Amino acid sequence: MKLESFFPIWDKIEPEQQEKLRKSAVKQTIKKGSILCDGGKECTGLVLVCDGLLRAYMLSEDGREVTVYRLFNRDICLLCASCVMTNIQFDIIIEAEQDTEAWVIPPWIYKSVQEESLVFSNYMNDLMAMNLSEVMWTVEQVMWKSVDKRLAAFLIEESNVENTLTLKITHEKIANHLGTAREVVTRMLKHFQTEGMVNLRRGEVEIIDLNKLEGLQ
Amino acid sequence: MKLESFFPIWDKIEPEQQEKLRKSAVKQTIKKGSILCDGGKECTGLVLVCDGLLRAYMLSEDGREVTVYRLFNRDICLLCASCVMTNIQFDIIIEAEQDTEAWVIPPWIYKSVQEESLVFSNYMNDLMAMNLSEVMWTVEQVMWKSVDKRLAAFLIEESNVENTLTLKITHEKIANHLGTAREVVTRMLKHFQTEGMVNLRRGEVEIIDLNKLEGLQ
Repeated sequence: MKLESFFPIWDKIEPEQQEKLRKSAVKQTIKKGSILCDGGKECTGLVLVCDGLLRAYMLSEDGREVTVYRLFNRDICLLCASCVMTNIQFDIIIEAEQDTEAWVIPPWIYKSVQEESLVFSNYMNDLMAMNLSEVMWTVEQVMWKSVDKRLAAFLIEESNVENTLTLKITHEKIANHLGTAREVVTRMLKHFQTEGMVNLRRGEVEIIDLNKLEGLQ
Repeated sequence: MKLESFFPIWDKIEPEQQEKLRKSAVKQTIKKGSILCDGGKECTGLVLVCDGLLRAYMLSEDGREVTVYRLFNRDICLLCASCVMTNIQFDIIIEAEQDTEAWVIPPWIYKSVQEESLVFSNYMNDLMAMNLSEVMWTVEQVMWKSVDKRLAAFLIEESNVENTLTLKITHEKIANHLGTAREVVTRMLKHFQTEGMVNLRRGEVEIIDLNKLEGLQ
């Protein structure tokens, strides 16, 4: 994917700033499982996902995780450049869920282009609003939706992402996405199995009745 | 409070845009309990809190509430202008917790100044990041903190806001702030009373051991 295609407003960015972005962007390959940024300690920069999958999650003091959102192809990760933002004070960890190819724009370039280009600054505002919207969605899910609905939604999303009905994923991993305990996930998956929606095998969840699962959401 | 004092970058805003903001801003008094914006249906504009207290909360399908954040004096509420933002898709309700005096800038003025002034656009980016940060904080609280800690933190905040140790607030209202059930709040308050931290009376919670309460957080 070309750098330009990440920005619908590319043609309106001033030539000097276009050049800055083009010259500084580096294509990187991020190995599955590696941590891209870790609670503001590092400041990677603006990350543009060409091909792969990233996950933004929060970690509690006792090690529980919850996925805040996932970044798919064509998504831009703002939070890896949180050092640029004056008022950001949370600890978010971004990891690669799949081998991921991405453009990375260094934080100081991101900052200077934002300070120089009105159209770029406005677009970043839109992106930030979208981020806020996604985080709100997570709050709503966590606050109001019961675990069975969230588990069903997660299995369906995962099967779309991986393009298969046979998910190679541990109960532990699912629990980390949903911010709940492994035991809760295991219990609910067994219930789903009894209901004929999934088949469970070691390290695998096979969806056998997608319609029924979708009806749960 | 003067309009200018809400924007640390006021002097850097171009004169034409300064003028637009000055001419369009209207000082409003919002009565305690009234709803300022309701899930994107109305689009009030940018709201600058001069004196008072606003609360942003979400509502579940079955009527439970949770406070996402509160806006104090000198705070700017971006979400009342969510119609301006391209990617905002959540339902947030803003209500006045106290009689509140605020400047209101119409959404179309906010939008046009943002599109014309680089320094204003950058400042709005900072504010949006701060909003995101606060919402994340709420997620963390809701996900990881037990009700006793959140209740203690809320009572302390409330006593600071109202500047008194005798809080006139119902258990229902507290539950709405914390996104939990009234029964849970009542049970926990009774526990706090047994522990000598509060005294309960009809429609009142009196803090009698602030130190102990603070130790709980």
